[in-house]
Amino acid sequence: MTLDAPGSVFLAEIREQPDALRRLLEHRDEYEEVAREAAAREPHVVRLVGHGSSDNAASYGVYAFGLQAAWTALRDSISLSVYYGAQLDLQRSIVIGLSQSGRTPDVVTYVTRARELGAFTVAVTNEIGSELALAADATLPLAAGSENAVAASKTYTNQIAALLLLAGAVSGRGAEVAAGIEQTATLMEDALPGIEHAVDAVATAFAYVGRMYVIGRGIEFATAREVALKLTETCRVAAEPLTSTDLAHGPIAALDPLFPVWTIASRDETLPAAVDAARRARATGATLVASGNAASEIEGAAYTLPVPEPPLPLLAPLLSVVPGQLFAAALALARGLDSDSPEGLTKVTLAQ
Amino acid sequence: MTLDAPGSVFLAEIREQPDALRRLLEHRDEYEEVAREAAAREPHVVRLVGHGSSDNAASYGVYAFGLQAAWTALRDSISLSVYYGAQLDLQRSIVIGLSQSGRTPDVVTYVTRARELGAFTVAVTNEIGSELALAADATLPLAAGSENAVAASKTYTNQIAALLLLAGAVSGRGAEVAAGIEQTATLMEDALPGIEHAVDAVATAFAYVGRMYVIGRGIEFATAREVALKLTETCRVAAEPLTSTDLAHGPIAALDPLFPVWTIASRDETLPAAVDAARRARATGATLVASGNAASEIEGAAYTLPVPEPPLPLLAPLLSVVPGQLFAAALALARGLDSDSPEGLTKVTLAQ
Repeated sequence: MTLDAPGSVFLAEIREQPDALRRLLEHRDEYEEVAREAAAREPHVVRLVGHGSSDNAASYGVYAFGLQAAWTALRDSISLSVYYGAQLDLQRSIVIGLSQSGRTPDVVTYVTRARELGAFTVAVTNEIGSELALAADATLPLAAGSENAVAASKTYTNQIAALLLLAGAVSGRGAEVAAGIEQTATLMEDALPGIEHAVDAVATAFAYVGRMYVIGRGIEFATAREVALKLTETCRVAAEPLTSTDLAHGPIAALDPLFPVWTIASRDETLPAAVDAARRARATGATLVASGNAASEIEGAAYTLPVPEPPLPLLAPLLSVVPGQLFAAALALARGLDSDSPEGLTKVTLAQ
Repeated sequence: MTLDAPGSVFLAEIREQPDALRRLLEHRDEYEEVAREAAAREPHVVRLVGHGSSDNAASYGVYAFGLQAAWTALRDSISLSVYYGAQLDLQRSIVIGLSQSGRTPDVVTYVTRARELGAFTVAVTNEIGSELALAADATLPLAAGSENAVAASKTYTNQIAALLLLAGAVSGRGAEVAAGIEQTATLMEDALPGIEHAVDAVATAFAYVGRMYVIGRGIEFATAREVALKLTETCRVAAEPLTSTDLAHGPIAALDPLFPVWTIASRDETLPAAVDAARRARATGATLVASGNAASEIEGAAYTLPVPEPPLPLLAPLLSVVPGQLFAAALALARGLDSDSPEGLTKVTLAQ
């Protein structure tokens, strides 16, 4: 609910992301301290819980902890604990509850029970006085500044940065990661106006699209999930995120020339899989959009939305999500929708 | 590629599922033996890997191990190990590689590396002489009999049963689980003709549908994923699986009267969440289909496809997937598609 022009709050928050990242870095000491406590537990697993954009960030956390700290991290099942009451031994678990508002009911319940069962519980939230923060052993601020559009943007990118900062601190690379985030904020700032301009032509072309696949793998699967969610919630496109391999295991059969595929292509070990998936999709006649710092590697893409290459490969998702956010904002406008307040959604989702 | 009528192989394999389950039970001793070896490792985690239907079955494995054995099981990231070469400590891990053919390339690579890193590796496959079986420490047969339709059916239900049989054996409840599977096979056999008849009217009504959500939570999220995959691969419907909570966190904004929602409703602790999600979907004007043993609890469903209640709640997914399989077969026929050989797909997917 806003008196501003439709979508102007969402757009302003997307543009604010470089500053939000810088605000997060002011809290680096708190991340280092929680990392020390977490490492002292010698954890068997890191359990990440969240819904919506927070769950998308959790997909990234699997790679941040796996690659920076050689720790096994998983997007844990909330229903297994909260609904079924499974009696797992959590003594050697780190639990990270992700929630912008800190009010997502079953995330709060999950964290409360996990703490009772012996886990070291950490709330990563934009609201440091929230229920989630009170339920957890430790709280790490997202410090993104108040987010008012229903569709998350700067809290998502700050969650990505927060998970990497924590994983980096665990492995003694906190300073390197923090410097990388700082540089990435500058790269993002410089790139934003150009991307904002570039998405307009794509939005015009896609004004009538009803369904789409968004493909990403490895560290960019989180990006694919987040871009698909933005398109679904703000533009009413049935956009489904898939890994490049998922596509070949069934969904490719559904493609046709009116069913576009958006590929997130970043320069890392999964790039050949992304290139191959895009080639298979193109062969069905599907229109391809490519974003990411290796977007130019996607052959036959009708639209290319490149982003700069970050100082560390693990930082790529901070930049590669931006074209998807801006495209969603532009497409919503082209379709006469208000991306600040999508129908049927509220900023804090209280559904179980 | 078949000389039979379109879809007749897929349909015959769906009908064969009760017998396939009985064939699996003949191998119960092998499951007990592997369970003993697995338990002797005192594992920290069970890592499940597979693609397509096998990955859907892995979603169920999280609950089978969590609820039967209080073990933490996760659908592990294949790319983290296979592409990025993450150096995780797997000494206290059980790895379960799921592949009907035993030839899925990156599942074979994952299992090979995990074994080198110290995991106890188990191949669950329909082909006991396959590469995957050779790569693993132990092999458990699916014993579903040769599967020839590109879309999996009986190998999926046997994977569900296999995971529950293994988890049951770990917790000393192998006999109870085996008896439950036996009874469920009989329930399925008795119910199949009625469901086959009932899906026809739904298929006629949905002949022109282009997109759909399939909702399930907890143990039925695997079913939602598998039903969505059947619709996507055999009927070219963009069907996306969602948990009931996912729906409220964004996708509900995309619904309209031409965007149907299929709800899997089984009588267990997650039923209130499924009922609530269906109510929210109905409020957007979306047409509802309800299946599962609590289908009648879904208010305002335009079509209800109930199944019998199994002797143990954890067995419900064996029955609740059947209406989705049969609906996919019927809808493919209604759309003039051959569900035995969907365009662009092959039985063994060699994509990375």
